[in-house]
Amino acid sequence: MIILGIDPGTATTGYGVIKIPDDILGREFKYDIELITYGNIHTPKEKLMEHRLHMIHSELSKIIREYKPDQMVSEMLFFGANTRTAIMVGQARGVIMLAAAQHKIPIQDYTGLQVKLMVAGSGRADKDQVHEGVRKFLGTSGRKRRRLTVNWKGGHLDDATDALAIAICHVLKLVAK
Amino acid sequence: MIILGIDPGTATTGYGVIKIPDDILGREFKYDIELITYGNIHTPKEKLMEHRLHMIHSELSKIIREYKPDQMVSEMLFFGANTRTAIMVGQARGVIMLAAAQHKIPIQDYTGLQVKLMVAGSGRADKDQVHEGVRKFLGTSGRKRRRLTVNWKGGHLDDATDALAIAICHVLKLVAK
Repeated sequence: MIILGIDPGTATTGYGVIKIPDDILGREFKYDIELITYGNIHTPKEKLMEHRLHMIHSELSKIIREYKPDQMVSEMLFFGANTRTAIMVGQARGVIMLAAAQHKIPIQDYTGLQVKLMVAGSGRADKDQVHEGVRKFLGTSGRKRRRLTVNWKGGHLDDATDALAIAICHVLKLVAK
Repeated sequence: MIILGIDPGTATTGYGVIKIPDDILGREFKYDIELITYGNIHTPKEKLMEHRLHMIHSELSKIIREYKPDQMVSEMLFFGANTRTAIMVGQARGVIMLAAAQHKIPIQDYTGLQVKLMVAGSGRADKDQVHEGVRKFLGTSGRKRRRLTVNWKGGHLDDATDALAIAICHVLKLVAK
């Protein structure tokens, strides 16, 4: 089963693709999460918003066609965000959800709180603790850890890491059921 | 010049198409706004959100292909809305802006305040006054008034009327320049 996690944003939409065995239920699951790829879709702030949304939709559609996820998961914005932020994130979410529907892939949301709880063990976890949780779940085999470490240096991968955290949260929820 | 006004919403996205002469600047413009069509895209609330967004995107794309607007205009949400509402409207806006970009049609926003001011003459105008303004600008010739009156009875056309108000607001802004 391939899971595509997405951290939606207008400037940067992070994505992360992981793979789990189809028979993961009841297994020592955490050593079975395979990292496939992760990265960011950046959009230049000089561009008009509709063109930025078009870029997000096009790039994400390419990723969907390439990795053929069985499930997409995204983060729901925390409540209490200001209206402007909520609309901007909503717009990015709109084209992401559309891409999922167009490719007939189920998509569901987790809140930031759920992601922190599941991946870092506490709803009060900070970004570093969440990222440490991501490394823990993905970086267990030698090959994968190396790959992760190498790519990790590539700059601002916060959003991509958050996207992986959302995907891992989904796996943990599946296993916990 | 064909203008497509849109009042975005998840449950109902209103749309209105009007036509103005290309040489409208400097003319007695208000008798030259021609009503082409208007209506609502309804999405059933039992459906998953991604499928509702897909419906909005598909239906709007059909309307764009049929009426070939030169300009799209949409309403920007008032600030101070709660986060949930802002995200929902943002999601609908996202797929609408995407449809505009995919068809290479410029899209711009007006606030509810601007629409009220331009169409009803006051930022404090209520819905009825805005709708009366829409009738005033569109219902001047016998043929158009009849058409408008007949269709007006067709039920919950609030959102479609708001969409027409947004399109008219754009015309008035163009002429005022």
